[in-house]
Amino acid sequence: MVLSGYGHGGDIYRNRVRLDFSANVNPLGTPPEVQNAVREAAGRLAPYPDPYCGALRAKLAARLGVEEDAILCGNGAAELIYSFALALAPRRALVTTPSFSEYAAALEAARCRVLPFPLVRKRDFQVGEEILSAISRDVDALILCNPNNPTGQCVAPGLLVRILERCRETGCLLLLDECFLDLTDREAAFSLLPLLRPGDPVVILRAFTKLYGMAGLRLGYCVCRNPELLERMSRFQQPWNVSTPAQAAGLAALDCGDFVRETLALLSEERWFLETGLTELGIPFLPSKVNFLLFQGDTDWGARLLAQGILIRSCVSFPGLTERDYRVAVRTRPENRALLAALAKLTDKKEDDKNAGK
Amino acid sequence: MVLSGYGHGGDIYRNRVRLDFSANVNPLGTPPEVQNAVREAAGRLAPYPDPYCGALRAKLAARLGVEEDAILCGNGAAELIYSFALALAPRRALVTTPSFSEYAAALEAARCRVLPFPLVRKRDFQVGEEILSAISRDVDALILCNPNNPTGQCVAPGLLVRILERCRETGCLLLLDECFLDLTDREAAFSLLPLLRPGDPVVILRAFTKLYGMAGLRLGYCVCRNPELLERMSRFQQPWNVSTPAQAAGLAALDCGDFVRETLALLSEERWFLETGLTELGIPFLPSKVNFLLFQGDTDWGARLLAQGILIRSCVSFPGLTERDYRVAVRTRPENRALLAALAKLTDKKEDDKNAGK
Repeated sequence: MVLSGYGHGGDIYRNRVRLDFSANVNPLGTPPEVQNAVREAAGRLAPYPDPYCGALRAKLAARLGVEEDAILCGNGAAELIYSFALALAPRRALVTTPSFSEYAAALEAARCRVLPFPLVRKRDFQVGEEILSAISRDVDALILCNPNNPTGQCVAPGLLVRILERCRETGCLLLLDECFLDLTDREAAFSLLPLLRPGDPVVILRAFTKLYGMAGLRLGYCVCRNPELLERMSRFQQPWNVSTPAQAAGLAALDCGDFVRETLALLSEERWFLETGLTELGIPFLPSKVNFLLFQGDTDWGARLLAQGILIRSCVSFPGLTERDYRVAVRTRPENRALLAALAKLTDKKEDDKNAGK
Repeated sequence: MVLSGYGHGGDIYRNRVRLDFSANVNPLGTPPEVQNAVREAAGRLAPYPDPYCGALRAKLAARLGVEEDAILCGNGAAELIYSFALALAPRRALVTTPSFSEYAAALEAARCRVLPFPLVRKRDFQVGEEILSAISRDVDALILCNPNNPTGQCVAPGLLVRILERCRETGCLLLLDECFLDLTDREAAFSLLPLLRPGDPVVILRAFTKLYGMAGLRLGYCVCRNPELLERMSRFQQPWNVSTPAQAAGLAALDCGDFVRETLALLSEERWFLETGLTELGIPFLPSKVNFLLFQGDTDWGARLLAQGILIRSCVSFPGLTERDYRVAVRTRPENRALLAALAKLTDKKEDDKNAGK
């Protein structure tokens, strides 16, 4: 009944899962420093958390080169998607499809009309220039995920700048979800953050949950250099939305530079390993820039892998994708090898069937 | 800028505080079992939390004697106040004053007209029978806090039943905030939970944060036996609103029966100690049923106590109260003694001034 519409990866609570490829979190897990910060915070849970996230916002602001007042923290980035939709209350919002389903869920909760902007398979689900003419005065908001979940594709930097300019011209709000951007090795090239100007109608969403293995703890933030928009968003949140352990973990995470470098090196190598393996198996996939990728298989692969304790993300619930589309996270070598071995059996089986049928 | 409207107790982050009487949390702090549950959860932060809070809701349902589907968990009870206001979207809502300010904040965010129902000082801020005629078909919702924050008063059980019946008759939604009820020794007598029938337009709010010293961790829930209302509320929340450590802490807290008994015994004794001390000092106060109480002093007492590192809650921001009203939490004996000693100096000083003026 409650939450009946849940359709995401990572449901390890109602499945017997040995290997979880369905949730896009860092394969190295949570850095020890972050775990220790949570253990330490366990001794000071009684007081209310800092409603301003003062220390965390100060450290983030210095790191990002923006003013503290341009940062609003959330109980995971997902909370901020709801704050955006409910507080800024667009009436008509463009959302690319396929993309993360919580955008539409939040907009629909806010009684907003969702205008899908379909990305097409034959162009590798890339955002094309047509989006510029779709951003008009009739549209109150655009939500864009960069890199996009579940396709793993980035918007071309030049086009992104033109999207920003178009939003400035029309006043269309832009929610740019960069939650996976720090899991690419091209963050500097693809982020819009350095180009934000005071007053821009743009909210950039970022997360600690994916890169720092904190999905279970919840911590995200957004950057917006339009104080009035951010103030409105904060009014739609309770004052104590970010827990004391999450604030402490965020502070610790920002000191984990080596962990980040190690993560990016691992992802780069393992993405290559997975993509090579899929190529060898003849499984069509979309080359990715991030820590997950999309491939195509038979409709029963999800169930058959799950029977072996391997959970992958069926993409049937994404508009524009089908029951043959699957998303898998890039994991560590032993896990990726296990996935490829399991997929090899599924494709072998198919070959056997073909041979048997001859 | 962000959160500029914050006016609550417990801001130990921007004040030098040695003793915090401003936040109404358990003076015994967090039970060791709960702290340990959080430390243990620090080792499994990478996966997403269970979006259904399955284990926690099952345990709560068994404890409360309601069906699991009647329970929705929140990132603290405060989140659920916003879910109630935003999802059920009353157009006109009665709110008793003075009361917890987040009710009006959430309703105003939801563009609801807040109709104050004033409780009067000369009747000890008790809810009277007039409230029954105020619950009419012109009113979409009533928010009632029992026991009430900041007055520490309970609604008479007989009147509460008539309020319930009146809400059933008119279809008026009732948000009954029982977050402090388990900090009284009269929970069984004052709760409406056992009287809820399937379909009732009633949402009962409960918290772990106060009783179990988990304000910094965030965990609350609501009970509603009208599945459609609860389903609507859940659609206004992100799916992963309750962190893995909070779910683990809630499960551990429900096994802390001895801690609860010890807390109630301490509160009963210390409330009596504080009330006796205030009487001896000639400071007018409202006898309380819970873990905080309201007293009257000079307008500068808040600042003068803070200069000594003692934070109390000025009630000037509560409609119906003044800059002479203060709320203090009931704490441990040494803390309460320190507060009374500091208050004694303030009242002594006044006597000295009078004598000097003669």
